[in-house]
Amino acid sequence: MKAQGTLLLKRREVATLLSIGECIAAVEEVFKLQAEGKISPPGILGIHAREGGFHIKAGLMGFGQRNYFAAKTNANFPQNMKRFGLPLIQGIIVLCDGENGYPLALMDSMEITIIRSGAATGVAAKYLARAEAKVATICGCGNQGRVSLQALAQVRSLSRVYAFDLDERQAERFADELSDELRIEVEAVNDLAKAVGESDICVTCTPSKQPFLKREYVRPGTFIAAVGADNEEKQELDPALMQGNKVVVDLIEQCAAIGDLHHALERGMMTRRDVHAELGEVIAHRKPGRASAEEIIIFDSTGTALQDVAAAVIVYERAVSTGSGVTMNFAE
Amino acid sequence: MKAQGTLLLKRREVATLLSIGECIAAVEEVFKLQAEGKISPPGILGIHAREGGFHIKAGLMGFGQRNYFAAKTNANFPQNMKRFGLPLIQGIIVLCDGENGYPLALMDSMEITIIRSGAATGVAAKYLARAEAKVATICGCGNQGRVSLQALAQVRSLSRVYAFDLDERQAERFADELSDELRIEVEAVNDLAKAVGESDICVTCTPSKQPFLKREYVRPGTFIAAVGADNEEKQELDPALMQGNKVVVDLIEQCAAIGDLHHALERGMMTRRDVHAELGEVIAHRKPGRASAEEIIIFDSTGTALQDVAAAVIVYERAVSTGSGVTMNFAE
Repeated sequence: MKAQGTLLLKRREVATLLSIGECIAAVEEVFKLQAEGKISPPGILGIHAREGGFHIKAGLMGFGQRNYFAAKTNANFPQNMKRFGLPLIQGIIVLCDGENGYPLALMDSMEITIIRSGAATGVAAKYLARAEAKVATICGCGNQGRVSLQALAQVRSLSRVYAFDLDERQAERFADELSDELRIEVEAVNDLAKAVGESDICVTCTPSKQPFLKREYVRPGTFIAAVGADNEEKQELDPALMQGNKVVVDLIEQCAAIGDLHHALERGMMTRRDVHAELGEVIAHRKPGRASAEEIIIFDSTGTALQDVAAAVIVYERAVSTGSGVTMNFAE
Repeated sequence: MKAQGTLLLKRREVATLLSIGECIAAVEEVFKLQAEGKISPPGILGIHAREGGFHIKAGLMGFGQRNYFAAKTNANFPQNMKRFGLPLIQGIIVLCDGENGYPLALMDSMEITIIRSGAATGVAAKYLARAEAKVATICGCGNQGRVSLQALAQVRSLSRVYAFDLDERQAERFADELSDELRIEVEAVNDLAKAVGESDICVTCTPSKQPFLKREYVRPGTFIAAVGADNEEKQELDPALMQGNKVVVDLIEQCAAIGDLHHALERGMMTRRDVHAELGEVIAHRKPGRASAEEIIIFDSTGTALQDVAAAVIVYERAVSTGSGVTMNFAE
């Protein structure tokens, strides 16, 4: 094997190379393989900084005939836009050959973080939402909301979507754009209780630090994906909503540390044993999914290293096959 | 602040930008700051692969007026040369602005790993070798041996050096090259016991998995830097040599897991409480260094994340001031 150089991929190139449909399939597969013990446990590392922090998610996996390793370094600085005009989240993924460590690609992490999180929502909805679910509410009309809705549309036949955001104009823009794109009726709303009360699916993907999705808003049979909380301060769901309902997590250790689960545990409203399953266990048929049309099921999503690896591999293989990006030999 | 793009630096550029003298000063400073509690604890993450593994070392530090974060992803595949014609160790460092997370630079890690390890040997020798030390033995005549000797030459007036390697021609080449470069008499030897017995300083930087530096080789007053062992299988020093002598480590947790200390602990020949100090504690005057001309002092070096950050920052700042490397805006 000859060193062929490291492929460099910008955000826009990554966005073009990674489709939500393909990412849903890959994320479903890695969750399953992990539950079956066929993938080494991934690793996570966090370093606090003054105004934010850095976290690294790293994992190794086989993909077709090849093994890959990826490490994503993401910086999260909540005041960045105000202070520096920079995005809150920025990062780089290092993708290596899992057989020999060669650095195959360096890519912007932003689209991967958004799309692989949306893909997990899609996978969870596929297994945990009612088959006939038709109405969804999206809380938080940013990029994550957009991809979450695109993912839901891949796994359920939605007829109506409510878009909720504290910034009402943002919700309206979102409704306009997604109506056109998905050919679903998307409506901006400001009464969250009413929208959720009419919904079969609700996705929360906001930067909230206060629970805003109350138990009393949610009707029986609803599937909820709690996507926004990914550090110990963030919270979207009323812990009372989690108590007594079926809670499925992406990774129990991670959700207990930084997900909405963390707050329910901290207040003593749940124990870890009350968690029904990790998503991979449901996919691998080790734990049952939805047991009735009535139960409320909550998916707590914090984002796993293996989702990043799976998405980065798709981007890399597609970039190679389409000749995208530029190459640089760092070892020279 | 405007996003100015990410600087890309190849191995040869890094080598040109990072001098051993400057790196010794920076590494001394970060060891001191860490001992004084002025730097957040760095993080480390390891993932095993079939034929090797990946490890990530990450840390955050202030440097002059600026804060920086660096994450080094290194792949270590011992059979790489035989199997793929690739180096055993390959890697990439992601350097970010510590105030806002912006990815400032991506650089090849090879020279940084070698030079920052050599620099730690230099710092340790500065504090722990006898002031009048003149004769040194280098075990392992690869790149790490070369930089270790360059570092020793910065902190002690060496008059004679013995070069030992299982590959005798490698030792001869090393002796020729380093004699010329450093204007010191460097002699290739194959009797390690004799060479060490005449030395004031001995550096081991081999890939050995068997202890080869025996207690009986070492005369009183010698300073030993054990640099090669950086995973649980590697070992260079006879545990009996560590027992009863003054052992200084870079990081006690890391050395207890992957350094030569690990083997001495495992055989019950030392406890953690027998470790005299971390190097930073000696630099910060929290623990005494050398107490007599007679004592044998061993420095167990496994390589710390903060050494990587310090070296990467030097490279970056020098690259900016000299206009080196090319820039790419990944966020586009």
